[in-house]
Amino acid sequence: IESKLPNVGTTIFTQMSQLANEVNAINLSQGFPNFKIDTKLEDIMANLVRTNAHQYLPMMGYNPLRSAVADKIQLHYGRKVDFEKEILITAGATQGIFTAIQALVHRGDEVVVIDPSYDCYAPAVELVGAKPVHINMEKGFRIDWNKIEAAMNEKTRMLIINNPHNPTGMMFDLSDIEALEAILEKYPEVLLLSDEVYEFIHFEKEFISINSREKIRERAIIISSFGKTFHITGWKLGYLVAPDYLLQEIKKVHQYLVFCVNSFGQLALAEYLPQTDLNELSAFYQQKKDFFTAAMKNSKFELLPSYGSYFVTANYSAISDLDDVSFSKWLTTEKGVAVIPTSVFNANKRDDKVVRFCFAKTEETLQQATDLLCKI
Amino acid sequence: IESKLPNVGTTIFTQMSQLANEVNAINLSQGFPNFKIDTKLEDIMANLVRTNAHQYLPMMGYNPLRSAVADKIQLHYGRKVDFEKEILITAGATQGIFTAIQALVHRGDEVVVIDPSYDCYAPAVELVGAKPVHINMEKGFRIDWNKIEAAMNEKTRMLIINNPHNPTGMMFDLSDIEALEAILEKYPEVLLLSDEVYEFIHFEKEFISINSREKIRERAIIISSFGKTFHITGWKLGYLVAPDYLLQEIKKVHQYLVFCVNSFGQLALAEYLPQTDLNELSAFYQQKKDFFTAAMKNSKFELLPSYGSYFVTANYSAISDLDDVSFSKWLTTEKGVAVIPTSVFNANKRDDKVVRFCFAKTEETLQQATDLLCKI
Ligand SMILES: CSCCC(=O)C(=O)O
Ligand SMILES: CSCCC(=O)C(=O)O
Repeated sequence: IESKLPNVGTTIFTQMSQLANEVNAINLSQGFPNFKIDTKLEDIMANLVRTNAHQYLPMMGYNPLRSAVADKIQLHYGRKVDFEKEILITAGATQGIFTAIQALVHRGDEVVVIDPSYDCYAPAVELVGAKPVHINMEKGFRIDWNKIEAAMNEKTRMLIINNPHNPTGMMFDLSDIEALEAILEKYPEVLLLSDEVYEFIHFEKEFISINSREKIRERAIIISSFGKTFHITGWKLGYLVAPDYLLQEIKKVHQYLVFCVNSFGQLALAEYLPQTDLNELSAFYQQKKDFFTAAMKNSKFELLPSYGSYFVTANYSAISDLDDVSFSKWLTTEKGVAVIPTSVFNANKRDDKVVRFCFAKTEETLQQATDLLCKI
Repeated sequence: IESKLPNVGTTIFTQMSQLANEVNAINLSQGFPNFKIDTKLEDIMANLVRTNAHQYLPMMGYNPLRSAVADKIQLHYGRKVDFEKEILITAGATQGIFTAIQALVHRGDEVVVIDPSYDCYAPAVELVGAKPVHINMEKGFRIDWNKIEAAMNEKTRMLIINNPHNPTGMMFDLSDIEALEAILEKYPEVLLLSDEVYEFIHFEKEFISINSREKIRERAIIISSFGKTFHITGWKLGYLVAPDYLLQEIKKVHQYLVFCVNSFGQLALAEYLPQTDLNELSAFYQQKKDFFTAAMKNSKFELLPSYGSYFVTANYSAISDLDDVSFSKWLTTEKGVAVIPTSVFNANKRDDKVVRFCFAKTEETLQQATDLLCKI
């Protein structure tokens, strides 16, 4: 059978989590928390079980949840969103990204992607018959915006950004955003897909959401995730913000791709979201990051700065000459700690000898893992 | 902005449910139950809330659930399925259908669709740049297999069937299946997408799943739905059965379209499914169908035979000359009962003056609705 994605294997997250399970390693690879969710959210769920929370909700999402999302966007970014026209609840951020690309990118178009890039972007672009144009970040996880601009042409339909950035922990400075805006001004037809799933997890630097940028948000599709924000990655619920003229097209695809998304989770979140203070999340994760960083001081890994997401990367050159994929497998099977290699996020497979650790774990797990890592 | 689906509006299910809500009509349009789920399933959910049921499950689904599905398939259809290689848990049947088409249908291919057809098939085919070839059923909801055969050619990649059939309630006889097999034998490259979401809801006739057909199941993608079977349409959980060589391709798309699906629901179903006797479901719905049918005796609607699904269609020629879309809106707004017109499922908009009623409702609701309908 002729494959439509001949170069695609199994996603690295599945590979590494599977390997971790097989050899019983501590899993700092795939990004998900291993601690309990807020008991308030548990209580809400417990109360919902016996109600009729089990049938289809409207195609674009449960209105009270969409409205609560709009309130948060206004509170955090000062953007007034018409929730009925500009917000779509999705089966996780991944489905939002895939659906937006299906709806808006045409065969023959080009889409600019900044590497290392989350692994669902390029295949989604390829499936519509468009071409992903990959530009590598510079050393130190900086973006050379001149290179981005040089990659644009009259075929470019979309630019995909990810801020806070997975896997590197990079965050855009105001100068990055301004450079981006200057480029988009020159290419008025280009859409912006902004993956902001870690929008509430950042350290030291101020996070600048595209929601707060008046000009470019009018052609932006902004993706977020309840999974990352509320420690419920398994619920597979996220949302997408886009101006009405774009969402009109996105919802045409959404309704035939999935129709609507999980009712039980949406009802729970509609009740929970208004009660939450999302500013607390960064402090919560800062503590975990600090704990992990301190414990890694005695290791041979060189931790690289992370300003956002629940990941931190590290250079392992002082330990091994292996390529990062082999090193990650070795670390998992021989040393008992699973990580994610970063070269797999580069289309050109550039290998900087850097692996990614997920620190969204209990202190106990982080202690056990760093004990093992410091012995290497 | 140039639309990729220029002829697509909002799905009829959303339109009619919205209208029903607006005018406070009894909603027999969109297919979903309005009664409570099994308390056993509620109990399982209640016990899960406080556990760590909230993180990513494996990309292809939770193994105990996949294994329980395989057991049911063996029990009901005598097919031995390797659950690790042949079963994928999806975010509802719709996502399974969309993903299979994305993975297996190429640009320029043709896909044969039998009208009236569920409204997600054709747009999914169009989005990959393939051509849906629509063949109408005959009067009496019979399929003329000669017409199906005549629609096939060397470009045909896939044939989509739906059994038990929505919206008509038609079910395949053995002679239909044999005619289908004879055609597929002549076209060895053609794949079969079999939408069997109402597999456990049928009346009088025996249901023949493609799972039980040794030859053609080797190139079939079979779609089913936990939503329809367990009265949990809102959970958005379904599954897809396909031989390994097809599932290899489908999972490449699945992992970048949605990655994985709702954990909470999968964990609950993994516990619940093995405790259920799926043979009881038909009797449960037979009672509702009988109740509805008896109550409609005094109406001017002519009910048409339904052998499967929780829908029954009716001809309204004795009541009105309106086209079926106008009639459905009139019935909703003026008479207080929302239904689904069936011409919207015909690419050529053929209007047989037939509307669809959903009888997956409490007797109280069915009584109220039929009281109104009998007054017309
Ligand atoms: C969808 S599984 C991967 C989770 C994640 O976002 C990551 O590990 O980067
Ligand atoms: C996906 S909403 C429609 C539900 C359904 O299957 C129907 O009403 O036919």
